[in-house]
Amino acid sequence: MKPIEPQEQLSSLLADDMAAVDAQIKRLMASKHAPRIPEVTAHLVEAGGKRLRPMLTLAAARLCGYNGPYHVHLAASVEFIHTATLLHDDVVDESEQRRGRPTANLLWDNKSSVLVGDYLFSRSFQLMVETGSLRVLDTLANASATIAEGEVLQLTAARNLATDEAIYLQVVRGKTAALFSAATKVGGVIADASDEITQALYDYGDALGISFQIVDDLLDFGGAATSFGKNTGDDFREHKMTLPVIKAVALADETERLFWERTIEKGDQQDGDLEHAIALMTKHGTLQATRQDAIKWAEKARTALTKIPESKIRNLLIDLSYYVVSRVV
Amino acid sequence: MKPIEPQEQLSSLLADDMAAVDAQIKRLMASKHAPRIPEVTAHLVEAGGKRLRPMLTLAAARLCGYNGPYHVHLAASVEFIHTATLLHDDVVDESEQRRGRPTANLLWDNKSSVLVGDYLFSRSFQLMVETGSLRVLDTLANASATIAEGEVLQLTAARNLATDEAIYLQVVRGKTAALFSAATKVGGVIADASDEITQALYDYGDALGISFQIVDDLLDFGGAATSFGKNTGDDFREHKMTLPVIKAVALADETERLFWERTIEKGDQQDGDLEHAIALMTKHGTLQATRQDAIKWAEKARTALTKIPESKIRNLLIDLSYYVVSRVV
Repeated sequence: MKPIEPQEQLSSLLADDMAAVDAQIKRLMASKHAPRIPEVTAHLVEAGGKRLRPMLTLAAARLCGYNGPYHVHLAASVEFIHTATLLHDDVVDESEQRRGRPTANLLWDNKSSVLVGDYLFSRSFQLMVETGSLRVLDTLANASATIAEGEVLQLTAARNLATDEAIYLQVVRGKTAALFSAATKVGGVIADASDEITQALYDYGDALGISFQIVDDLLDFGGAATSFGKNTGDDFREHKMTLPVIKAVALADETERLFWERTIEKGDQQDGDLEHAIALMTKHGTLQATRQDAIKWAEKARTALTKIPESKIRNLLIDLSYYVVSRVV
Repeated sequence: MKPIEPQEQLSSLLADDMAAVDAQIKRLMASKHAPRIPEVTAHLVEAGGKRLRPMLTLAAARLCGYNGPYHVHLAASVEFIHTATLLHDDVVDESEQRRGRPTANLLWDNKSSVLVGDYLFSRSFQLMVETGSLRVLDTLANASATIAEGEVLQLTAARNLATDEAIYLQVVRGKTAALFSAATKVGGVIADASDEITQALYDYGDALGISFQIVDDLLDFGGAATSFGKNTGDDFREHKMTLPVIKAVALADETERLFWERTIEKGDQQDGDLEHAIALMTKHGTLQATRQDAIKWAEKARTALTKIPESKIRNLLIDLSYYVVSRVV
């Protein structure tokens, strides 16, 4: 029997709250005047996403003993920001598939993806306003700016072999960790937790998000043990400088450097290039080194939680940090 | 000598405030990590826009005797929302270009437009948070949702001959009037004006914005006296159902209806179609009728201002309502 994943355990522990979040999402994605909006949103929201980010908000609020109604607003708000960025990402990346289904920009058009994303983003701020907490608004407005900044940075870092691990970390903080850390932090803020606890929740979300994204980038090359993995190679084809590539470029000899210049910088790719890229990364051990980095960030996430008293939810958040890394072998 | 436009008079009356708004804009469009952001923003912000919307916020705040610093934040915030929507509109124009119609390529690429727009939108919320006023956040979050909803509605209303004047009004409220009315209202809100005054400011912005957009739509066909006007025909080529077209379709005989079905619904346009469309609108007097509507909304804007005590700024806002309509003869 397959063990139950920590995410599913959290989900059943917070089942009532999660149902309330779904109800809020349905309420807010409605549009009296523009039926295209709920159509596009439903396509994404109901596509079987795991609602990881809103669950983090609910878990953090419960962890801090919150009993009011507004953690649900915040969780829905976080999911809306996430959905809005997915819609805009698919336009930016010109993606045709997400979670195994055709993307909204393919089904409708880029215009709808951009404008419905804007709508969801506005709705997320309306939800925050409903909580009446300026600190919450501050946290999530800052996170939104960091997300957009990270995405722009990723745009300019792509095709640039000079991109180093420091820049990669900024990109990852933007595209992924900023919303994780805001999601956990606002759970504490709405519960009026101490600054120390709120900071610990932020640090947990930040490190978990970074670990999560490093694993994602590694999985794009099939994982650390590539002979068993199933690679998609999307990042390589989009000339993105993710961590395994950055590490391989740093260790490249002259011939290898010419390979990276052609495939990433010039973007001139041929059949077999992805396999050769993976072979180079395997040769230099950069896939394993990347996995070690993911493990290190997961450990940091757990360290942050030591500042929070033990509880069932805290233990599941610890389990989650192990689980995130377990996706890659 | 050309008379000085009311907008320029307001601009010199509020010169110090406007300079402070420019300084805020420069501060907020900076990005430590992603230089692409200020590049793209500067291209738009410094492109000689008239800063009409932020000026409305400053004027409204002064009208209500505000002496604090935050009207400047709000004016910059309003300009950022406006710039973000322009950037996202540009993406819509880029995809029009793929259908074989050349448009001015102002910016870097679609990706940058989407993401820098998102960044400015987030920054605008950060500015609002700095004011510490939840009412301001409520007003501008609502306006942002209405803007996005109006843009989506416009998307689905295009190519649809069933679009009527009620739907057109919703689109116009979204794409233009919502930010005008929020811009004037938040000036009152930050000054802690009475509900009656705040509502009057909102009503003024709403009616002024509608009048402004109707005039814009009319100018796209060269104005009401077409023989002297200079038409661009962009809306017609994009199959948009603007007011002059809606009125002409409502009065079309069978042959004319076939023309509109071909050019708008099917989007099959040939040389001479724009001229024929204008001839039909002239025949039915719909250009003049559209102009009358713009004049009616400008009158509504002035009526709203009667609730506000006389002052130099109030009189300039009245002049502005005349000026907006004077762009079209």
